[in-house]
Amino acid sequence: MSASFRERYAAAAAANRSLLCVGLDPDPVRLPDGVDAVAFSRAMIEATADLVCCYKPNAAFFEADGAAGWSALRAVIEAVPAAVPVLLDAKRGDVGHSAAFYARAAFEQLGAHAVTLSPYLGLDALAPFLAYRDRHSFVLCRTSNPSAGELQNLTADGRPLYEQVALLARRWNVHGNVGLVAGATYPHELARVRALCPDQLLLVPGVGAQEGDLAAAVRASVDASGGGALINASRAVLYAVERGSMRERARAARRAASELRDAINAARGVAV
Amino acid sequence: MSASFRERYAAAAAANRSLLCVGLDPDPVRLPDGVDAVAFSRAMIEATADLVCCYKPNAAFFEADGAAGWSALRAVIEAVPAAVPVLLDAKRGDVGHSAAFYARAAFEQLGAHAVTLSPYLGLDALAPFLAYRDRHSFVLCRTSNPSAGELQNLTADGRPLYEQVALLARRWNVHGNVGLVAGATYPHELARVRALCPDQLLLVPGVGAQEGDLAAAVRASVDASGGGALINASRAVLYAVERGSMRERARAARRAASELRDAINAARGVAV
Repeated sequence: MSASFRERYAAAAAANRSLLCVGLDPDPVRLPDGVDAVAFSRAMIEATADLVCCYKPNAAFFEADGAAGWSALRAVIEAVPAAVPVLLDAKRGDVGHSAAFYARAAFEQLGAHAVTLSPYLGLDALAPFLAYRDRHSFVLCRTSNPSAGELQNLTADGRPLYEQVALLARRWNVHGNVGLVAGATYPHELARVRALCPDQLLLVPGVGAQEGDLAAAVRASVDASGGGALINASRAVLYAVERGSMRERARAARRAASELRDAINAARGVAV
Repeated sequence: MSASFRERYAAAAAANRSLLCVGLDPDPVRLPDGVDAVAFSRAMIEATADLVCCYKPNAAFFEADGAAGWSALRAVIEAVPAAVPVLLDAKRGDVGHSAAFYARAAFEQLGAHAVTLSPYLGLDALAPFLAYRDRHSFVLCRTSNPSAGELQNLTADGRPLYEQVALLARRWNVHGNVGLVAGATYPHELARVRALCPDQLLLVPGVGAQEGDLAAAVRASVDASGGGALINASRAVLYAVERGSMRERARAARRAASELRDAINAARGVAV
């Protein structure tokens, strides 16, 4: 049996001494002239593969280009070295019958090792994903965007809704393959999610371009061993500079990724 | 300026005297030998186009086939006659920056007139969709699946969470292009959603294969004029028979759609 996502993540995090996850969001208007999404993403992967614990392509940026974009997404996932796992940021969530097809798309057609999912429909929308025991499903819990609290901070049966989702995610974790998404922009909520789910993986978006406080987010999200978190940066790495050749941009991305890795390690008390 | 989704829906509902929406969910294991998803969907559209108010392809069934599936989805949408609008069942929901790409995929790349979306991230995940004022966004409110209540029926600030979502959807409806999804399998909740949102369009899945009580669901979901709802059936129409030639299956689908349309009209007091 092949390694689980959790094992792949742990191996990459150890080998690269890194909790940095790089989001692959190729925005066509920000790419160098004559460089397409696949070539850009490949160059970013080559520049950073020894500095990360995971890559996280976001399906939205590829879907906007239709069938060609879907082919590009698959090519980008294939370009990730075997030593680094791939988390498809898809935020899917549909009734069980349809969810089975989404799971097949993410895990079989695209070959991702993990996926992000919405909790709004409850367990039977997640079950077809969880049935892939070697893959991981990260459930949206407390997201990083400004309007996240409109639903997520409502008081639901005595505690914030996002805490209820954390408790559900803990219950859903029967096979050890359920993680949670909690944004760096809300470190207090992030710490609550970690307290409720001490042993589950946390995907933490919102550092860099979304300006979360990195050190606070890292301290709030790591588990008792100082690991168990994927601290994601997308634009802060991919577009560390927005001019120059692909080679210059890749160099800037590598520098940004290296600095983020070191800052994350400093915050969690790992020697830089 | 071209017609809005709401105008297209109203025109088709009036011309065909129908609130029936047919879901296009081509499951490869249920298709006749030698018939692909596009040919199957086209035959179903030809057999039912004068009996429906809308078609609702579900992205999941196409994504599972990768780039080819995405091309097929586009071809299916193009095969729908101009007189009938298309609602893409995608259930997307991501932070604003990414949501803008999902909106482009649904409305520009695929040419859908409406889409289904998750409310979990709040308004800024919906805003890029709502900015297309002639398109419609249907927000998941009370879904039709068995575990829907795990989150949706939690008591949130004094009322069920799905009611809070209904109130938010009413507030988000500034441009008159926000609808809601409420399943036929829970007619009591459906009636509450209609009461909270008297003037918005409701997409009602869960009749037929999911065995909701059709007459109760219709009465609970129509607005004061006896319209304003899209009563969706997918499998009950597409797979009305599971044997025989494509021609025989199309004939059975037409019969099933016709009976559903008539039953919906009887329940809402429109002469059959």
